[in-house]
Amino acid sequence: MVSIQCIIICDMSNMIKRLAVLGSTGSIGQQTLEVVRALPNRFRIVGLAAGKNIALLSKQINEFKPSFVYYQGKKTQTQPANGDYELLSLEEIVSHPQVDIVIIAISGKSGLSPTLAAVKAGKTVALANKESLVMAGEIITKEAKQNSAQILPIDSEHSAIWQCLRGETQEATQLILTASGGPFLGYSLAQLEEVTTKQALRHPSWQMGRKVTIDSATLMNKGLEVIEAHWLFNMPFDNIKVLIHPQSIVHSMVEFMDGSVKAQLSYPDMRLPIQYALSYPERLPNPQLPRLNWSTINKLTFEQPDLDTFPCLKLAIDAGKKGGTYPAVLCAADEIAVALFLSQRIKFTDIAYLVEQALEQHQSIAHPTLEEIMAADAWARQKVRELTGASKC
Amino acid sequence: MVSIQCIIICDMSNMIKRLAVLGSTGSIGQQTLEVVRALPNRFRIVGLAAGKNIALLSKQINEFKPSFVYYQGKKTQTQPANGDYELLSLEEIVSHPQVDIVIIAISGKSGLSPTLAAVKAGKTVALANKESLVMAGEIITKEAKQNSAQILPIDSEHSAIWQCLRGETQEATQLILTASGGPFLGYSLAQLEEVTTKQALRHPSWQMGRKVTIDSATLMNKGLEVIEAHWLFNMPFDNIKVLIHPQSIVHSMVEFMDGSVKAQLSYPDMRLPIQYALSYPERLPNPQLPRLNWSTINKLTFEQPDLDTFPCLKLAIDAGKKGGTYPAVLCAADEIAVALFLSQRIKFTDIAYLVEQALEQHQSIAHPTLEEIMAADAWARQKVRELTGASKC
Repeated sequence: MVSIQCIIICDMSNMIKRLAVLGSTGSIGQQTLEVVRALPNRFRIVGLAAGKNIALLSKQINEFKPSFVYYQGKKTQTQPANGDYELLSLEEIVSHPQVDIVIIAISGKSGLSPTLAAVKAGKTVALANKESLVMAGEIITKEAKQNSAQILPIDSEHSAIWQCLRGETQEATQLILTASGGPFLGYSLAQLEEVTTKQALRHPSWQMGRKVTIDSATLMNKGLEVIEAHWLFNMPFDNIKVLIHPQSIVHSMVEFMDGSVKAQLSYPDMRLPIQYALSYPERLPNPQLPRLNWSTINKLTFEQPDLDTFPCLKLAIDAGKKGGTYPAVLCAADEIAVALFLSQRIKFTDIAYLVEQALEQHQSIAHPTLEEIMAADAWARQKVRELTGASKC
Repeated sequence: MVSIQCIIICDMSNMIKRLAVLGSTGSIGQQTLEVVRALPNRFRIVGLAAGKNIALLSKQINEFKPSFVYYQGKKTQTQPANGDYELLSLEEIVSHPQVDIVIIAISGKSGLSPTLAAVKAGKTVALANKESLVMAGEIITKEAKQNSAQILPIDSEHSAIWQCLRGETQEATQLILTASGGPFLGYSLAQLEEVTTKQALRHPSWQMGRKVTIDSATLMNKGLEVIEAHWLFNMPFDNIKVLIHPQSIVHSMVEFMDGSVKAQLSYPDMRLPIQYALSYPERLPNPQLPRLNWSTINKLTFEQPDLDTFPCLKLAIDAGKKGGTYPAVLCAADEIAVALFLSQRIKFTDIAYLVEQALEQHQSIAHPTLEEIMAADAWARQKVRELTGASKC
């Protein structure tokens, strides 16, 4: 008995994974900490990085006692809580030898640079940031390969695909990304002209940050996910389909060469894909994660996306197919346009119009360097501001 | 270039699997041969075994040129087509060193003995016969383990579960077997009293043999599948659920310990699970297998089974839980009752009544030997005949 107990103790202690959460005060960051809180014997927070929400970061520092901390605007802001931690740069945290998994939960293009640094350091990267792969998929996947870094998806759709591919030894023939359709599913273009910011922020099935909620309403989010899926799973764009599924229970599907299709299902709860990425290749029981109750699920519905009414999806897929710096322009133009919509300076339908204009006027560079990607990003931001007469956004 | 070509040729030749199809003239047998016909470079038929359909067996012999043949009632029947084959017993075929995979497509209890022989010979067994595992699951799974034989499911539900479990390294927490509900889904008990044999044989989604079509209408088929799933996947009965899904597109689902659920989908076509079992661990492209067309699939519906109206499902699960010789009695009583219904000698609702009576009156033996199972089978057949006053069926 004694020896058996010893083995279990040693084993448990070996299995604790040390995590650095970048973007710990955001929606995905907080849910990552919830997972860690529920499974304290399996994960330890060694690094926390946040933006400007110092109050929440301080609470997190007090609770999780990280060894390394980063926060934006060190010199001008309120200081976070004291503790036995070092203040490090994002690059130092993501490449630190004490970190097993880097969780990139930063939204927007700020996620790109630390993702690249983590990949260059050969880390296992649990990636929730969309922009990294959309803007610089070619560079990041190449660096990941060269440095034997693993990129594990945290998006529910990509996690679903990854789970469906598990154990399969041959390439899939098709990826089917599901989309809830957002709050305006079934609306006409004329109706869309009139929708308010408040309406757009009311997502029917997912609780998410503001930017991604608007991107879900325009279907831009799904377009970005198609580009991500292309890079994550090395799948040609023509073999990635989007299917509207308002219940958000089937998170995505994979078709194999024999015609068999596998799907992954759960209630919409980001803690599941987060936990799966952290615990992989294991699955862990977590009583906080809801289980599907089939006595209340009566139907799952599916329909084709309406690309005429929601042109952002097509814009994104086209930008992905063309490659070069187009995806960076797509991201940047969308980021500014969404910000303008959130501050009620443009209409909902202007988002697609502005992104389209930026893409049309852009001179793309094939196989761009990181600098060229950043320049395209800056160009697109400026272009959208010009188009709207907005001086700063 | 020369060396590369050589490698490919050698590799292809190594990959041809040699198959023995038992029950080649039945529904699953014929569909197995369709798969082989579509993939002639991957499979070769070395053995064919049939019952009394000598005309079809002869055609199959002429086309597939097997090395070994078996047919029932050798001395009294018409002889099958001549050819360069040996006439062997079922036991000799399933244990022959030239056979890589044994496909058990025989229906009814006749499948049990060759399944056991194949498992004892350490073969890979692609199993479509339900009765083997239902009647003698304990013996067969034990022998499979002892002789390193692999049992690969051919039933669409078990194939779905097997595909969903692929690559997973931990036990599932729940298996969810889907059922179409058959032609009488939504009927009341009073309506069921009146249904005809013709109505019962009209399955809404699957083309199958007569016995299994009636079993689908009573839900007995799903009950037998629950018992099979128990043995195939070593899953407690309480963790196996049945869900009615009339579209027969989701073939079954698996829930994991983190709450994630995986499902396998395709149109109802037995050639897919047959091919998957034969090609495993590979998947093979087969243009004859249909691909899901999501522009025509609008909804998938689910509901709980109605155990009061369709008591066979509960009878089967209870018999499986109790174990011993109860499942053998269940199978045998059902086989006779279904035959009586098909010959219009009893009502549809009598099937469940007769099975229930046989189970109630049976004295079960725990951990039975094969002989004890066969005795229980004979007892149950006799009991149902007594109960109905049928002299021979």
